[in-house]
Amino acid sequence: MHIPISRTSKQSISDQIAQTIMERIGSGMYKEGEPLHSVRQLAKEIGVSVVTVIKAYRILEQKGFTVTQHGKGTFITTSNQAGPSNATPDYAWQAEVVDYSGRSMFGQHTKRSGVAKYPFHAATLSEELLPMNALRQATERASHDPRSFAGYSSPLGDEDLRETLSSYFQSNGSDVRASEIMITTGCQQGIDLVARTFIGAGDVVLVESPTYPAALDSFRSRGARIVPIPSDHQGIRMDLLTRLFDEQAPKVVYVVPTGQNPTGSIMDMETRRRLLDLAESFHCLIVEDDPWSEIHYERQIPPSMYRLDQNGHVIFLKGFSKTLAPGLRLGCLAAKGDIYSRLAGVKAIADLSTPLFNQRSFLHLLRGISLPDYYDSVRIHMTRKRESVQRLLQKYAAGSVQWVAPQAGPNFWLQTTIDTDALVIEAERERISFLPGSNCFIDLSGSRYLRIGFGAIPSEKLEEGIAELCKLINNQEKTKETQR
Amino acid sequence: MHIPISRTSKQSISDQIAQTIMERIGSGMYKEGEPLHSVRQLAKEIGVSVVTVIKAYRILEQKGFTVTQHGKGTFITTSNQAGPSNATPDYAWQAEVVDYSGRSMFGQHTKRSGVAKYPFHAATLSEELLPMNALRQATERASHDPRSFAGYSSPLGDEDLRETLSSYFQSNGSDVRASEIMITTGCQQGIDLVARTFIGAGDVVLVESPTYPAALDSFRSRGARIVPIPSDHQGIRMDLLTRLFDEQAPKVVYVVPTGQNPTGSIMDMETRRRLLDLAESFHCLIVEDDPWSEIHYERQIPPSMYRLDQNGHVIFLKGFSKTLAPGLRLGCLAAKGDIYSRLAGVKAIADLSTPLFNQRSFLHLLRGISLPDYYDSVRIHMTRKRESVQRLLQKYAAGSVQWVAPQAGPNFWLQTTIDTDALVIEAERERISFLPGSNCFIDLSGSRYLRIGFGAIPSEKLEEGIAELCKLINNQEKTKETQR
Repeated sequence: MHIPISRTSKQSISDQIAQTIMERIGSGMYKEGEPLHSVRQLAKEIGVSVVTVIKAYRILEQKGFTVTQHGKGTFITTSNQAGPSNATPDYAWQAEVVDYSGRSMFGQHTKRSGVAKYPFHAATLSEELLPMNALRQATERASHDPRSFAGYSSPLGDEDLRETLSSYFQSNGSDVRASEIMITTGCQQGIDLVARTFIGAGDVVLVESPTYPAALDSFRSRGARIVPIPSDHQGIRMDLLTRLFDEQAPKVVYVVPTGQNPTGSIMDMETRRRLLDLAESFHCLIVEDDPWSEIHYERQIPPSMYRLDQNGHVIFLKGFSKTLAPGLRLGCLAAKGDIYSRLAGVKAIADLSTPLFNQRSFLHLLRGISLPDYYDSVRIHMTRKRESVQRLLQKYAAGSVQWVAPQAGPNFWLQTTIDTDALVIEAERERISFLPGSNCFIDLSGSRYLRIGFGAIPSEKLEEGIAELCKLINNQEKTKETQR
Repeated sequence: MHIPISRTSKQSISDQIAQTIMERIGSGMYKEGEPLHSVRQLAKEIGVSVVTVIKAYRILEQKGFTVTQHGKGTFITTSNQAGPSNATPDYAWQAEVVDYSGRSMFGQHTKRSGVAKYPFHAATLSEELLPMNALRQATERASHDPRSFAGYSSPLGDEDLRETLSSYFQSNGSDVRASEIMITTGCQQGIDLVARTFIGAGDVVLVESPTYPAALDSFRSRGARIVPIPSDHQGIRMDLLTRLFDEQAPKVVYVVPTGQNPTGSIMDMETRRRLLDLAESFHCLIVEDDPWSEIHYERQIPPSMYRLDQNGHVIFLKGFSKTLAPGLRLGCLAAKGDIYSRLAGVKAIADLSTPLFNQRSFLHLLRGISLPDYYDSVRIHMTRKRESVQRLLQKYAAGSVQWVAPQAGPNFWLQTTIDTDALVIEAERERISFLPGSNCFIDLSGSRYLRIGFGAIPSEKLEEGIAELCKLINNQEKTKETQR
């Protein structure tokens, strides 16, 4: 029985002992009929005089918490009604527990957006576009191989899947070997593994601004100093880039070069090469996040930075979750040399391995469909949908919203004149969700912006969804004008 | 074009510039026919005199890396054969990149043990024991609900699954509400989330010794000061426990009370309550890791510490991965109050959410089978298997190995007189794997011990597997005696 004692407290030590025991009786920790330690024993255990404990026990008895049977000892009674009622649990002590979590802005947001009728917050594809039959067949095939249920994979991932992904990358002209590939639970885990492995307190991370909120969450949770890369409407300001490296000496640069999140832009070849050039000069790492490069609306896109990289500066994060099977949460990372093996150690700490069933299902999916053909068909669908969104924005919000159509990916980045942090709460009531712009900026500025994803909204609901969203925006705008 | 320049180098600045450009040509970063910056431009950009750049360009031309066309500029040629051959990528720079990973001992080990014929390293169940048909049916059912493929769950997990798990816990007499439950990708992610959220550099974590290696990995990666709880053959030394708390002021206590890993022991009620008592006094957190409590060989086991806990001190980690479906990697954590919500933020950062397909499959599994009946049948099987292991150890290694049979779980903790770190490498050649004891101690002591799991070895292979393993142990012992 340990009793914490403060010798600097204004409360006498006897009072402190009595109070602790009363609290424990109140909380149900000490039960009716249980004996307390003998006076001598408790005194010795907590290092106070016998007299002090006698006083404490007297208080307990006076308040009706205990009864003393001479020759036998002191026992707890149930007549604790008079005491401080602790029948409801007391979690107040938890406030003292220091944590290192940094919170997740994005997680908070997505938690709220779960049951939206129009889930514009989601950057995924709707069922009509996903290969649902092939997925069913793939999981069925996996379920007939007992190993998928009974085993774990190595932390690096299933060998067959890594080989198959290597072939896929090579068919795209990118020489990514199986030994460079590690299977992750979605792109987010890839970002987080890089953050845990290479970013510590005060390390500088360069990011595009705006950028992907959940990446900011990961970097922030590591205590990074996050520095935005100066950009204008044409993309990264090349004239300032070198000076930025010189002055900030970044350790990691995080970019989404193809289908930037949230703007949907594509980084041109010159910028890609300049960034690589600087990474070589400054011995820094580039994290290339790539969940959407297959779904582009420009005829040609530049090669991935991982492909351009010669000396192991780029960590490539390839997501398949959003474009193929959100429910399987499958992604991979690719890295070279030592950088790869250090990430592997952290992957094992994080979750031992990505579920083998998902890996084997994904393997069967890749064997069952032609990924290039599938992505071609999604691209055609999404191109059409993207046109619709433009037309609908024009129709319902021409005066109040500005935008540039994405060059790749499922997101429109809208500029308004209203406060989208307020709008998101109002929209929630109508079961419409979107990502408020402030989430995408380090300093939570950008509250005039919002990101809407059109991939997860079924085609037939697109018009009514956008109409309803625009109505909310237009109303807010009118209210604002009236208030002037 | 940025060129890093060191003004304290022995190499002249011209030489430095020329060398960097040569390296980039060698690495393929600068291609044939490309123009270099004009002398004036480069001089300005990197802040050196024009004369310095002229000298550098002269070196490049003399070595055949460039050609100057008067009036047009300097261009890269392909005749770079004479220069430093950088055709093979150069990852040497990566050695400079500081990381914070802490490595994973356990991950290294399991990576090596992947293809064992006798996987004694694995603490899982073999196919013969797992509910393979029910798993197939459950995944099939999930695959017919499009939502399982097309969506993400909230970071906290699927609502239906959390409700169902709550009911399961309540049927076991433990009042765990759905709002206290968070779905994780296996128990390991639970451990790691706690470590990331609540453990920082220098924070004290108390652990049983020996303990689960992957937990040590997580705590170590956070810079924890890990302190072993003094124990003897009867379990935790109660007489030293209070002093340990007093002196070390732990922030977190990590225990596996039922089916301790690796010893298989069960913590008695008195110890559980004493630990809780101390946690209350010192405002610290108890992490109760529970992957195996259903598979116990004692008639009765004490209630979980989570159930005994009144004021939110215990974080309960329940694994279903090992006993039900390793391939789905499903687990959950339970926590109360503020502690829960802080963990939730970190879960979102780690991977946004556990794959929804796995959650929905697991839900259908729980609806499809009676968990108590299933665990009863596994317990009967495992009890029989445990008897066999005892008999076989007696038969093949009575003189060279000592053990106490587990009270719960699938592991025997064996004591030998040989070096099991050496044995594990030899065993690998025979495709026999086990966990060397050193992995389970903070200071890597315990190299006379080994952990063997009997759950993953099919019954019909058990005798030959143990016979082969014991032969290796006995041989080592003989060699050692001969060498004396």
